Amino acid sequence: MTEFEGGLKEKVMITDRKKFKKIYDLKSETIQLPTGNIKCEELRNMERGSSFFLNGKEYIILDCDLQDYIMKKLTRKTQIVYPKEAGYILFKLDVFPGKTIGETGTGSAALTNVFSRAVGSDGKVYTFEKREDFKKVIFKNLAEAKVFDNVEVIDKALEDSEADINGILFDAFFLDVKEPWSLLEHVYKALKPSGHLGIFLPTTNQIEKTLKALDKEKFYLHEITEIMIRKYKDNPDRIRPEDTMIGHTGFLIFARKLV
Amino acid sequence: MTEFEGGLKEKVMITDRKKFKKIYDLKSETIQLPTGNIKCEELRNMERGSSFFLNGKEYIILDCDLQDYIMKKLTRKTQIVYPKEAGYILFKLDVFPGKTIGETGTGSAALTNVFSRAVGSDGKVYTFEKREDFKKVIFKNLAEAKVFDNVEVIDKALEDSEADINGILFDAFFLDVKEPWSLLEHVYKALKPSGHLGIFLPTTNQIEKTLKALDKEKFYLHEITEIMIRKYKDNPDRIRPEDTMIGHTGFLIFARKLV
Amino acid sequence: MTEFEGGLKEKVMITDRKKFKKIYDLKSETIQLPTGNIKCEELRNMERGSSFFLNGKEYIILDCDLQDYIMKKLTRKTQIVYPKEAGYILFKLDVFPGKTIGETGTGSAALTNVFSRAVGSDGKVYTFEKREDFKKVIFKNLAEAKVFDNVEVIDKALEDSEADINGILFDAFFLDVKEPWSLLEHVYKALKPSGHLGIFLPTTNQIEKTLKALDKEKFYLHEITEIMIRKYKDNPDRIRPEDTMIGHTGFLIFARKLV
Amino acid sequence: MTEFEGGLKEKVMITDRKKFKKIYDLKSETIQLPTGNIKCEELRNMERGSSFFLNGKEYIILDCDLQDYIMKKLTRKTQIVYPKEAGYILFKLDVFPGKTIGETGTGSAALTNVFSRAVGSDGKVYTFEKREDFKKVIFKNLAEAKVFDNVEVIDKALEDSEADINGILFDAFFLDVKEPWSLLEHVYKALKPSGHLGIFLPTTNQIEKTLKALDKEKFYLHEITEIMIRKYKDNPDRIRPEDTMIGHTGFLIFARKLV
Repeated sequence: MTEFEGGLKEKVMITDRKKFKKIYDLKSETIQLPTGNIKCEELRNMERGSSFFLNGKEYIILDCDLQDYIMKKLTRKTQIVYPKEAGYILFKLDVFPGKTIGETGTGSAALTNVFSRAVGSDGKVYTFEKREDFKKVIFKNLAEAKVFDNVEVIDKALEDSEADINGILFDAFFLDVKEPWSLLEHVYKALKPSGHLGIFLPTTNQIEKTLKALDKEKFYLHEITEIMIRKYKDNPDRIRPEDTMIGHTGFLIFARKLV
Repeated sequence: MTEFEGGLKEKVMITDRKKFKKIYDLKSETIQLPTGNIKCEELRNMERGSSFFLNGKEYIILDCDLQDYIMKKLTRKTQIVYPKEAGYILFKLDVFPGKTIGETGTGSAALTNVFSRAVGSDGKVYTFEKREDFKKVIFKNLAEAKVFDNVEVIDKALEDSEADINGILFDAFFLDVKEPWSLLEHVYKALKPSGHLGIFLPTTNQIEKTLKALDKEKFYLHEITEIMIRKYKDNPDRIRPEDTMIGHTGFLIFARKLV
Repeated sequence: MTEFEGGLKEKVMITDRKKFKKIYDLKSETIQLPTGNIKCEELRNMERGSSFFLNGKEYIILDCDLQDYIMKKLTRKTQIVYPKEAGYILFKLDVFPGKTIGETGTGSAALTNVFSRAVGSDGKVYTFEKREDFKKVIFKNLAEAKVFDNVEVIDKALEDSEADINGILFDAFFLDVKEPWSLLEHVYKALKPSGHLGIFLPTTNQIEKTLKALDKEKFYLHEITEIMIRKYKDNPDRIRPEDTMIGHTGFLIFARKLV
Repeated sequence: MTEFEGGLKEKVMITDRKKFKKIYDLKSETIQLPTGNIKCEELRNMERGSSFFLNGKEYIILDCDLQDYIMKKLTRKTQIVYPKEAGYILFKLDVFPGKTIGETGTGSAALTNVFSRAVGSDGKVYTFEKREDFKKVIFKNLAEAKVFDNVEVIDKALEDSEADINGILFDAFFLDVKEPWSLLEHVYKALKPSGHLGIFLPTTNQIEKTLKALDKEKFYLHEITEIMIRKYKDNPDRIRPEDTMIGHTGFLIFARKLV
C-alpha cells in the first residue's frame, strides 16, 4: 500500500464549522486562530477529525485534502482551474493510474497537482511553462501537495520543446493558454493516436477561433461544454440554493486525435 | 508501466462524426454499421484514430474510454451516476491511487468502475449490493471495463456486512441509496477519522432527511451541491448552447468523519 | 372596465391534469378529445374551471390565456420568443398601458401579441415584417388573440419604412432579426430620447457584432443577459427539477437611446 | 394618450456608463455626484438621454423607469421580487390592462407597483398587508412610482379581509408570504373561476407544504418553476458571463382555480 507522504501530511484544515476554514502547516512553532494562538506540537498530537477548544471557541482539525489545498492554500499566480472543472477534466481525458499526461501552461500548478495525483507512481505528467517568474511558485505548489514523484516541469513553450518530449506520446494533453489554436499542431504530434485533447477557454471568441483551427482531418471534436455548480444552504428546514453562485469560470472543449 | 488490458481494450467507439456513435466489441465475427456489415478482423487491424469507408460513408474508429463505455455500453439496471457528477465525486472524496473506497449500492457498477480506475492496483474498492438480481449485471459491467483487479463485491446490505469489512477503515465512502440517513451510523464506523463521505440524492426531501440525521458530533458537513452541465453546438459561426439540456440528475452532499 | 372580447374568448384550454393539454376553438361543431368527440355547444355552456367526464376520463376546461395560446395554438412560421423571455422583455423595456412600441421582425407575431396586450387601448404597437409569405399567419395570429385594436403591421423592412413611421417616436423598440447591427441607425432615429432598445440574439457571434456596432455616442448599453428556466416535478414527496430542460433560446441585449 | 405623470417623472437615473448608477429626485435643491454637486434646476433642463461633464467626468442622464426605481431607489423593508421573476409573473398570471389583481403580503410594494403599471387606469390592484410598521414605506413607494391611481392597500391579513373584498372576484392573485398554504382557502374564494394563482417561495420545504395543501378539487397545478438569470460582460472581444451571478431568489408555483 502506498504511503501518503509529502507536503499535505503536514498540513491540516482547521474550521469552526462555520465561515472560518483555513489550512495550516504544522511545521511552524505556533499558529494563529481567531480566538488566540496555539502550539503546533499540540495540534500534531491531535487525531485528525477531533475537536478542541481555544478560549471558549470549538474548532475541528481535519486532514488537508487536495481540494482544500488548491482552494485555500496553493499560491496563485494565475486564475486556476476550479474543482467543478478539475474532476470533469480527469474523467473526460480518461486520466487514471499509469497514464502519461501533458499540460500547458502550468500556471499555478493547480491542475498539475490534480493530474499528478490521478496518474500515480506508474504515471507521468509533463507540464510546460515558459514564464520564468512562475517557476518558484510552481515548484513550491508541487512540492507541498505531491504524493507521487511523477511531474516533469519543462520551462519552455510547448512549441519549443520538441527535443524535450522527443519520443513521448501522451495519452492526453490539456491546454490552458490564451491562444490554444496556435498550439494544435504541436499537440497533435505529441498525442497518441486516439488520444484525448482538452482545452480550457474563458470566452466564446476563443471557442470560435479554436473550432475554426481544429482540423477535421486531425481531431474528432467530442464536446464543447460548460459546468455550473450550485451550492445549497445547510438548514434542513429551509432548503434553498445559496444566494450567490459562481457565474462563470470557463468553457471546455474535448477532442480525440485522428490519424 | 501498467499494461492497460481488460475489456475495453477489445472495445472500440465508431462514429460518423455526427449523430451516429456506438461502442462495439471486436470479439464478435462481424458488426453492423448504418451502411452495412464489416468483419471485426478488419477493424482489429485498423489503428485507433483512423477512418474508413463503408459503402460510401466515412467512419472513425477510436479507443473506447471509460466515459464512452459508461454512457453507451454499460448495461443499466438502475439510474447511473453521470460524468458531470462522477468527476466531481472523485475530486471531492480525494480519491487517488492507493486509496480504499467503499460504496453502496453498487447499482449498475458505473461509479464502481470509476472508483476502480481511480485507485489503481494499490487501491481497493468495496461495493455493497444486496439485490441478488443485480449480481450478474454488476459482474459483467466490472469485467468488461476493468483495468485493475481491485474490486470486492459484497452481496449484502451495508448494515449486515460488519463481519465482511471487519478491520477495514475506508478513506472515503459513497452512498447512492434511497434512504442514506439509515446507513450513516454504519458508514461512520467504517470510515477513517477525517475520512470523506459522499451522498447522491435525487430529491430535496432526501436532503432534508439526511441533514437532520447527520449528527454534528460525528460528521462535519462540507457541502451540499448540484452540478449542471451545458453543451454547446459546434458551428463556430453560430456559437450557442444546445437547445435542450439535462435538467437534473441529483444533489450531492459531502462530509468528513469526526472523532 | 374593459370588456375582454376577441379571439381567446372563444378558445378554451382542455386538460386531463396530466400530459394532455390542448387549446380548442369553440366555434367548431364538435371537437375531438383523446376519449371521444364532444359537441362545442356543450362546452360553451360549461363554466370555465369546471370538469366533465367523457367516456370515463375526467377533463378540466379553462379559459385560454395568452401564454397557453402562444405556446399551444399560435401558428408558427418562425422560432418564437418564449414566456421566459417575453415577461422579462416587457419589464426591461418598461412597457405598460399607453406606450408606443416598435418591433421587427414580426415573425409569427407572438411577441406582437404580448406587446399589444401590455400597452392596452391607449397604446400602440408598430410591427415591421417585409416577408410577404408571413402576412397571412401574422394577421391570423393577431386576430385570434387580440383584446385591443392597437397593432399596425407594416409590410416593409424597417429601413424602408421611414415614411410610414414619419413623426412617430417610440418609447421602446425590439429587434428580433438576424443582423440587428444593420438596423441600429434606423432604430436610433425612431426612438424617443432615453427610449428603450431590446434585442434578441441566438448566438454569441451576434452578440459580438452587435456590441461592436452599438455606437457609444448613441446608445447606453444596459445589460446583456440570458434567462434559464427550470421546471420542477409536482410530487411533494419527491421534489426535484424535471429531468430535461430548455438549454437555450437566445441572449438579450438592452440599451437606452442617448442624444 | 395617457400622460405619464407621477413620481418617476421627477426622478432620473444618472450613470457614468460604468459602475456608478443612481436614481435622483429632481425636487431637491442640489444633488451630489462622485465628482461634485450639481443644481437640480440644471438637470431639469437637460434632455433625457443627454450627457454632461462635471469636474472632468462625463455623466449620462436618463428617465428613471420602473425597474431602475425598484432596484435602486425603492425603500426596502423586505426581500423584494426581482425583475427576473416580476416579468414572468405578469406573463403567467395573464395580467394586462383592465384586470383586477390581488396580492399579499405587500411587503415593500415592489410587485404592487409592477401590477399597478400593468393593469392601467381600467384595472385595479388590491394588496393586503397587516403589518402596521410597513404602512409608511408602502405608501411612499407607491406614491413615488405610480402612473395610475388604481391600488387599494388593505391593512389587514387576507384571512380577516372578507368584508373588505366582499363581492370582488380577482382575475389573478399572488401570494408572497411565509405560509401560503394557510391562505389557499381564502384565495380560492376570492378568485374568479379559471382565475390565476401565483406563489413565491424561497425554500423547497415550502414547495412541499404548498403542494400538499393545494386541493386538487380546487386548483389545477400548472407549473413549479425557478428562473435563473445570467448577465454577460460587455467586451465584444471577450464575450463571457459575469464571474458571479444570483444563485437563488425563490421558486414560483402557478395554478388555476377550478369550480
